[in-house]
Parts: sequence; C-alpha cells; structure tokens
Amino acid sequence: MERPIGVIDSGVGGLTVAQELMRQLPNEQLIYFGDTLRCPYGSRTKDEIIQFTWEMVHFLFEKNIKMLVIACNTATAYTLKSLQQQLPIPVIGVIKPGARAAIKATKNNVVGVIGTEATVSSKAYETALKQIKPEITVQSLACPLFVPMVEKGILSGEEAERVVKHSLKSLIKDNRMDTLVLGCTHYPLLKETIQSVIGDDLTIISSSDETARETSAILEVHNLLATKPRQNDHIFYTTGELEIFRHIAKVIFNNTPKHIKKVKL
Amino acid sequence: MERPIGVIDSGVGGLTVAQELMRQLPNEQLIYFGDTLRCPYGSRTKDEIIQFTWEMVHFLFEKNIKMLVIACNTATAYTLKSLQQQLPIPVIGVIKPGARAAIKATKNNVVGVIGTEATVSSKAYETALKQIKPEITVQSLACPLFVPMVEKGILSGEEAERVVKHSLKSLIKDNRMDTLVLGCTHYPLLKETIQSVIGDDLTIISSSDETARETSAILEVHNLLATKPRQNDHIFYTTGELEIFRHIAKVIFNNTPKHIKKVKL
Repeated sequence: MERPIGVIDSGVGGLTVAQELMRQLPNEQLIYFGDTLRCPYGSRTKDEIIQFTWEMVHFLFEKNIKMLVIACNTATAYTLKSLQQQLPIPVIGVIKPGARAAIKATKNNVVGVIGTEATVSSKAYETALKQIKPEITVQSLACPLFVPMVEKGILSGEEAERVVKHSLKSLIKDNRMDTLVLGCTHYPLLKETIQSVIGDDLTIISSSDETARETSAILEVHNLLATKPRQNDHIFYTTGELEIFRHIAKVIFNNTPKHIKKVKL
Repeated sequence: MERPIGVIDSGVGGLTVAQELMRQLPNEQLIYFGDTLRCPYGSRTKDEIIQFTWEMVHFLFEKNIKMLVIACNTATAYTLKSLQQQLPIPVIGVIKPGARAAIKATKNNVVGVIGTEATVSSKAYETALKQIKPEITVQSLACPLFVPMVEKGILSGEEAERVVKHSLKSLIKDNRMDTLVLGCTHYPLLKETIQSVIGDDLTIISSSDETARETSAILEVHNLLATKPRQNDHIFYTTGELEIFRHIAKVIFNNTPKHIKKVKL
C-alpha cells in the first residue's frame, strides 16, 4: 500500500517518532506536520489542544494518508479516542505503546512517568497502566522546562544537566521506580542526559521507539505495509521558523531532510 | 470482557508465553493447551502440524475463548494465516512480534534466528523481517536438540551448556549478528545459558515476551481487555504426562498451577 503515513506533533518532538518510523519501517513514506508556531501544547487548554490537533489532521487528510500517528503525548491524551472514532483510517497515539513497554520492563511494578503539565494532569499514563495492570504504582511528574529547552536545541551539557537534575529531584529522592517512561516525544532527545542523572540501573522507555514498533504491527494487521524501499521522499511541514526546524531535524536525523516546507494553518 | 484467552503449544514451551501473559495482563484468564504427547512439532510434516493445531483449536473453541495465542513458532509458521482467516476471533502468532522487536533492537541489521528445523525451513522469520526491513541480514540456525532437552527439564548446568555451545557454534564463529531471536517458545528457558555462551553484548529477543506485549495491544484495540483481577483460575490441559507437565510448570511459574488436566484429543 504505497500511501504515506501521517505524523503530527506540536513541534519538533515528534521527529523522534519519525526517526524511529524511518529506521524500523524503511519502506514507508512519512508526511510530518509540526505545529512549532503554537508549541508547546503542554501548557494549552484542552479546547485549544483539540482544535489545533484537528487542524493538523485536516491538513494531512488532503495528502491521502493511510494511517495517522499522533506523535505528541499531550495531543494523544486529549484527542486519540475521538480521532479513532471519527477517522476512517487506523490512528495510533504514543501513550499506550509506552505504557505496554513499561509493563513489560518493570520488575517491581513502580513506574515513573515524566511529561508536560497537560499530559500529567490528564492522568493518561496512569489510566493506561492501571487498566492493564492494576498493581502498578505510577509516579508522575511534570517537567515543563524540558520542551522549551529542547526546542532551543539544548540537549546536553551543563545547562541541560542542571535543568534535568532539578526537574527530576523528587523522583530521584523517592528512589522506588525501576522504569521511567519518557512521556513526551521531545524527551528522547534528552535521554542521555536523563540516564546520566538517574543512573544506569533504571530502564528508560521512549514512547517514540515503542510507537514506531506498534505502528509496524498495526500496518501489518490492516494489510497496509508498503512493499518498495523509499528514496528519502518524506515531507515535513512546520508552522514555525524553517531554520530552527531544519537545525533540530539535522540533529535528530544526522542529516537534513530534503523537503521541509513552512505552512500556515 | 471476562472471557478467557486460549493459548496453544506443542508442549510446555508455550508456558513461557503464558507466564508473560499472566505477568503483563494480570486481569486475564488463560486456558492453555499443550500437546505434549505429540511434541516436538519441529520434526513433524507440514500436514501433521496443521492437523494437530486445528485439533487444539477445536478443543479450546468450546471453552468460549475471546482470542487465540499460538504460542508455538512451528505452528505459527504453518497455520497462522489460515487461522486468522477462518476464526471469528483475533489470532496472534509468536513470529511477527519477535521480528518487530528484533528490528527495533538491531543496530547493524544482522539478526540471528534460532528455532526448530520446521520453523527454520519455513523461512517465516526471514520473510517477516525482510518484508518490513529489506536490508536486514538473517542468519537462521536450527537447534533440534534444545526442545527435547527442555522437555526433560534440563535448563542449565554442564550438559545444557555443552549442547548450547555445540549447537550455536556456526553463529558464534561468524560473529556478525548483534541481535538473536529465540524463535521457539521453549528457548527462553535456556536464555541464561544461551546468553552466557554468546556473551552479554548481544541482545536476545524472546518471542514469548514480545507476543504477550502484542496480545495486550490487540486486546485493547478490539476492546477485549478484562477489567477484574483474577484469582489464579487459569486452566492447563496437556495430552502428555501430568507429572512432567507439572514439574516444568513449577520451574517456569515458581509455583504449581491449581488446575492441570490430562486430556485425549
């Protein structure tokens, strides 16, 4: 099925999902939409998040996508259900794949989840984890400084380490979880810094990697897998500054995507 | 949805899938069928494998199962497609979950797969891996001595190590793969021995763990997740000796299941 997969995010964080989709599913073409101009969604109201997400979906629907990946935890928390009910194509979010991976990984059933304020206050991870395995203890923490820092391209070094250490203080002090879910697709860009701050013993789950893997499963179940290798013809749309988007895309992909376009919604 | 999940296997290997299902999905009830009398399937003809598998399915269908897990790589290789087409409930095999996990894990795109003769000669893993990611190099190897050894309860120690070392000789000598798929549900019982023989640097993928995780995803997508915690009311049927089944179940589960029954097919 040689139609593209649509990927939406509030900004550049979803590029970590796109990168894993490209790596795990090299036959697939992606059309990515990052609403960088209105990022971060994490501090927006529920109504705004729903409205912005639907605007991205309408844009991508004109590109004949065969499946939609909501590569943003905040948007997933508030729109997944309605998108799944209303769209005629499979829709996957980033929360349940991360939750299932955490359940598989944890040995002591204490799972930490870090995300934006909106994701944490939605309790979406807690609901997903406990629905499947009620005995899981969830320790959620909002890290509102991470997304703006990543969007500025600060991923490691002294400043990043200071911010991460300060943000995770209460989780580190509590010292019970054996698994930490990066419940925001921006956070895998800070993974090394986070791992160095919390130590090697903890398993870090990237909702981005896990979502790419479940996308693979869903494409197979729906008989939608593409069969011919692609030639780097992915297309990236952003509502924000082209230069910043290009810079972060280059950091994530190790090269600059050919097709990056600025659009207005 | 408080109906049980059916799990079938040629013998006791599928208990490693059952164990992970119980751990990752504690609300679910399992009805397990192990055709220990006619095990191993790995050296059976294609027609025999198909006939035996359907006999187990007919038996479980009378138990009102809501989903079927083929917890046997050999049976998956030869019957998954027709079971998926003909049964009115979701059916999952163990091969594609293992393949997807290997694609996620491998960094150098060289993946080893070990399994029974029948699984290896079916090329089911190779097909699954290359369909999704054509650039993967697959190194398959049949290990016909592993299943009889596990069914006898020999999982570690000198003899197990000698057999594993001898069986994996060609893969170890070649020294290219960075990921090894245990393409037989008996093999996770030898995981520690295998890891000690091939070294810590290699990622070992257990198709059992991965299948449990994808079962969780499928139950959710189909709205079939059970909602109340279970009281260890899983039921295990075997066509073979009760005592041997009970012994291996105890090794795997760390306690003896309450309900183990011997049946004739």
